[in-house]
Formats: sequence, structure tokens, C-alpha cells
Amino acid sequence: MNFASFEALRVACQDLPVGDQAAGQAVARRQDTLTKPRGSLGRLEELVAWLARWQGREVPSLDRVKVIVFAGSHGVTAQGVSAYPSEVTAQMVANFAAGGAAINQLARVAGAELEVISLDVERPTADFTLAPAMSEPEFLAAVARGYETVEDGLDLLCLGEMGIGNTTAAAAIAAALFGGIDQWIGRGTGVDDAGLGRKAAAIEVAVKLHGEVLHDPLRAAAAVGGRELAAMLGATLAARHKGVPVLIDGFVCTAAVAPLGKLHAHGLDHAIAAHVSAEAGHGRLLSAMNLKPLLDLGMRLGEGTGACLAVNMLRSALACHIGMASFADAGVSEKAE
Amino acid sequence: MNFASFEALRVACQDLPVGDQAAGQAVARRQDTLTKPRGSLGRLEELVAWLARWQGREVPSLDRVKVIVFAGSHGVTAQGVSAYPSEVTAQMVANFAAGGAAINQLARVAGAELEVISLDVERPTADFTLAPAMSEPEFLAAVARGYETVEDGLDLLCLGEMGIGNTTAAAAIAAALFGGIDQWIGRGTGVDDAGLGRKAAAIEVAVKLHGEVLHDPLRAAAAVGGRELAAMLGATLAARHKGVPVLIDGFVCTAAVAPLGKLHAHGLDHAIAAHVSAEAGHGRLLSAMNLKPLLDLGMRLGEGTGACLAVNMLRSALACHIGMASFADAGVSEKAE
Repeated sequence: MNFASFEALRVACQDLPVGDQAAGQAVARRQDTLTKPRGSLGRLEELVAWLARWQGREVPSLDRVKVIVFAGSHGVTAQGVSAYPSEVTAQMVANFAAGGAAINQLARVAGAELEVISLDVERPTADFTLAPAMSEPEFLAAVARGYETVEDGLDLLCLGEMGIGNTTAAAAIAAALFGGIDQWIGRGTGVDDAGLGRKAAAIEVAVKLHGEVLHDPLRAAAAVGGRELAAMLGATLAARHKGVPVLIDGFVCTAAVAPLGKLHAHGLDHAIAAHVSAEAGHGRLLSAMNLKPLLDLGMRLGEGTGACLAVNMLRSALACHIGMASFADAGVSEKAE
Repeated sequence: MNFASFEALRVACQDLPVGDQAAGQAVARRQDTLTKPRGSLGRLEELVAWLARWQGREVPSLDRVKVIVFAGSHGVTAQGVSAYPSEVTAQMVANFAAGGAAINQLARVAGAELEVISLDVERPTADFTLAPAMSEPEFLAAVARGYETVEDGLDLLCLGEMGIGNTTAAAAIAAALFGGIDQWIGRGTGVDDAGLGRKAAAIEVAVKLHGEVLHDPLRAAAAVGGRELAAMLGATLAARHKGVPVLIDGFVCTAAVAPLGKLHAHGLDHAIAAHVSAEAGHGRLLSAMNLKPLLDLGMRLGEGTGACLAVNMLRSALACHIGMASFADAGVSEKAE
């Protein structure tokens, strides 16, 4: 899928399938027959109905679960916004390939296939305090790259990312889409107070420099985002069109897909926030986007680690739905009415 | 292990091993060398150090994980405190045996062995609005039964329970140990407003009837608890003495082990609250006991379902700890200091 212009992409973001609501309702009806008090599996019950709706079948499957880690490099690191040097992005891509990162272990436990997509890691985006991070064609190419990573027939997509400097890009997108600056600034990989000040200053400069385009979620994502964020937006859009439910990971990932939520009131209904991270702005961003996270474990690593943890919850939820006996089958007395 | 008297059990609850603190510290030191910002796996890092301390080894294991569901019947159901008839307890024990309950599915996903222990399900405790639920020997026998279910060499114990009426017993224990009544009353399996009123009334009567013994956590657990609650207390005590970390499940389970926390300031350090349930008093009880739940998914089923979900978190945490590369091994640059 190629997008010829911001406008072509906007159309694709606004003309979205609504999922199979009948399949979701069939799941909810079956849940009420199973040997447990109604609703007593809490969010696990909702998760199965959600999978059914967006996979488009009454009995959802989790046979093909994929985690895609999108990696990109950021020119804004020149402003001293990160605790780690920018070469760590490429080093971590090598670490993913060698199987040594957290996401490698978590994907294995979750029974998920792991793919790593380098978005020109050797070629950073422009420093967005000086110029737009990406031109329109660069941004659209990254979106398209993300779009094409989503295969037909996937049962679930977990989004992940790696990119030194990308919490600065995420905070800038949040500032553009939801206003304010300071509320989106956090320590990322662990920047000190001076670095935190440089991060805020960089975003202030960017908001002034790119002010004219920031009202438009797509132009904002091009001006102050990053290639891996653009690719996550593209992958999330593709997942919607291809019937693949999505687990959103942390702050960067949430900011990356925010434009889809801004362009369509139900644009992220096929996506669930896997967790709320310890990054300062994440809880606020989730609230602003009306997303209710599944997990809250004080994590702040990215890579799709939170999304991968939530896969285990989905597997558990689905196992209950498929494997449990009904009151009638098990000869268990129902609630006295 | 047999306990001859409340006093003998009290001694066993007050003379507790402290775990292997050096093993926990070794885990924390290794965590800081792995390819992630320090602390960025949040509670996952703490969980591994906790496993190490209580298993007593620097590299913990999760090869032998067991869920034990303790089932008991409650005379207080005569007061109309539950939405379900009391025969459901035995019917659900049969459902566990047939593999049709939620816990069967969740244990399988978590890679845990499931055992169900019936504590004389065919013989309810006395209605504690009229008499002590259990005599001293009955209570101690149930504690001993729980104690002996914990084998040496287990890597993790998940506690679960089944017993129509047992949220009433749990609320009564909470009232005895922490004061107040209404704050502990919840809908359990889904009792209506009238049933909720009967539940509160039953506990008010019991608090007056047994007032003289309620200052003592063990006598309180005998007077207003239940056999499956006593067994969970015994199992948790055994786990401490045998080097087995424990995952606590919901409201009933938390109330059941509360006496150990009351009798020893660090009596529950080897136990983690797997989740906070939707049962009204659970969050308050966890706060009163200084336990911070791992998950919050709106569940209220019992059976050990919340504990089982948390096993997946522990497996994920351990996989990261064992499988991740260090900065040095992976050639990843460390944080600029």
C-alpha cells in the first residue's frame, strides 16, 4: 500500500471497517453460560469479545501472534535529550538479532513471532528543532513500510519500537495533538534533570517552528515524529483493514498511533493499550485518548515488552472462553433469581 | 505437621525463616548489567529478586508451579448470604475434576499443576451466627491439612479456593482483624441488595457473639472463618518453612492468610498479592495488609484464577533475567554518566 499524499493517507484513516459486532455479541452470550458468576472474569471476558469482533469470527484464535519492533534514528538527539548515545539504536537492533534483548525473551514466553524492522536506522531524521523531521514523501514511505509488514491471517499484532530520542518525538506529537508541553516530558531511558530541561526546550522550539502544521495529526507526525512512529501508525492502519487486533505498547507507541484516533472517533477501537508505563506522560496520554491499560507494572523499556506481557492475558482469556464447561453441561446449579 | 493447640500454631507462625537475602541481592546486581535502562522492567525485576530470596538460590526456577484449590462448605449460608445454593461448592469440585472450570484452563496456560483439596465439603462448618464455625481441633486439622499439601521442592504455590458463602467468612475475618464491618461487605458471586443486607447482619451478629476471641487472629479464624481458609493459612505457613514463594489470589484468600501477617510483621514477605479483585473489600484489605497487587483486571471468580494469571508475569520476568545479554556481552554502549 502506497500513499501518494497526506490527503490520500487521511482518506485511508477515515474510511475504516467497523469489525464484526455480531461475533463480539456471540462471545458475550456464550460467556454468560459458562460455569462462573456472570462477568466474574472481568476484563478477560471483554478481551475475548474484542478479539472476536476484530478478527471477525465467533471463536477467535491466537495461533499467529506477531511482535514487530520498529527501529529508527532521531536527529533531535543532537539536542542532548537522551541518557544514551544515539548509536545504541543500531546496537540494540543487533542485540535483537542475536536474541539478547528483553523482547526476545518475552516474545518466546508469549508464543509470539518477533520481527525487527529497521527504518533506515543508519540515516537519522532531521533535527526537528531546525527543520521538519521528515518530508511528506519520507513520512509516507515510513507509513507504507509499516503498513506492508502486516500480513493477512495474523491473529494479533503487538507493536514495539526502539529509537534513542523517540520519547522526545512522542512528547512532541502529544503536545501537537493534545496541547501543553511539560505534561508530556519524562525521563525516557533515564535522562537527568539537565537533559529533561533540554528535552522540554527542544519541544518548545519545535512547537513554535512547526506551529502552522500541528493542527493536522498527519503533518504533525511528519514534522516532529520519527520513522518508526510513522511505521507503527501504518501498521495499525493496515491491521484495521486486514482484521488484525492490535496491542499498543508504551508511551512512544501510543503517541505514534494517536493520529488515527484523532482522525476517526473509533479509529483505535481495534487496538488495546497493553499497559501504562512509568514514563511520566503515558498515563495522561492514555486518558486523553480514552484508552484503559490492561497492566500497570512500572515498566518503561519499550521494544513491545508491555504488549508481549499482555499476550499472556489474551491467551488466558481465550482458553477460558473455549475450554470452560457451561452450567448445563457441568450440572452446576445456576444463581437463584 | 500437626498443631496441638492454638498456642503451638502461634509459635510456628512467629518463628519464621527470613529467606536468602544474598540471593535476592545477587539478582538485583545482575539486573543492572542487562541490556535495558536500569529498573526499566519495573516490577518484573523485583519479582525475580523475590523468587530468588524465597527459593534460596541466585537463579530461581519455575519448573514446578502448583495451584491448589481448597474447597469448603459454610454453615452461614443458612442466613441467605450467597447468590448461589450451597450445593454449588460440591458441584464445582466435580467441575474441577472434569476440567471444565476457569482454573483448569488458566492453570494449563500458566504451565501449573492443579490440585483440588476438599475440606470435608459434605460437612459444612457451623453457622457462625449461632456458634463458632469450627472448634479448636477442627480448625487445627484444617490448618494441618493445608500445611501437608505443600511438597518440598515446589518452585511456586498459587492459592485458590471454592466455597459458597466464603466471602462472608472472609469479611468476618477482616472485621475481626482490622475493625469495621461494612467496608468488608461485597457482592461475592453476585448477591442482590437484600442478600447484601443479610450478609452485613450475619457479620454484626457474629462480631457480638464471638467478641471475646476476635482479638486473637487464630481464634478469630476458627470462630468466623472456614476450613478452606484455615487450609490456605496452613499452606502459606508451610510454604514459608519449605522455601516456596506464594501467590495470593482474591479477597477470600487474602483474608485467609491475614492472621500470619498479624502474628508476624514479615509473616507474608514470601507471598505476593497476584491481583486486586472487583470484590468491594479486597482493595481495602490489601491496603490494610500493605500488599501491592500485581494485576487489576476486575476479576471476582476466586479458584486461584488471579494467581494463575500472575504466573505468566513471573515466567516472563524470569525469562528476561536468565536470557538477556549484558551490555558488555552485546557490545551495547552504557548510559552516559
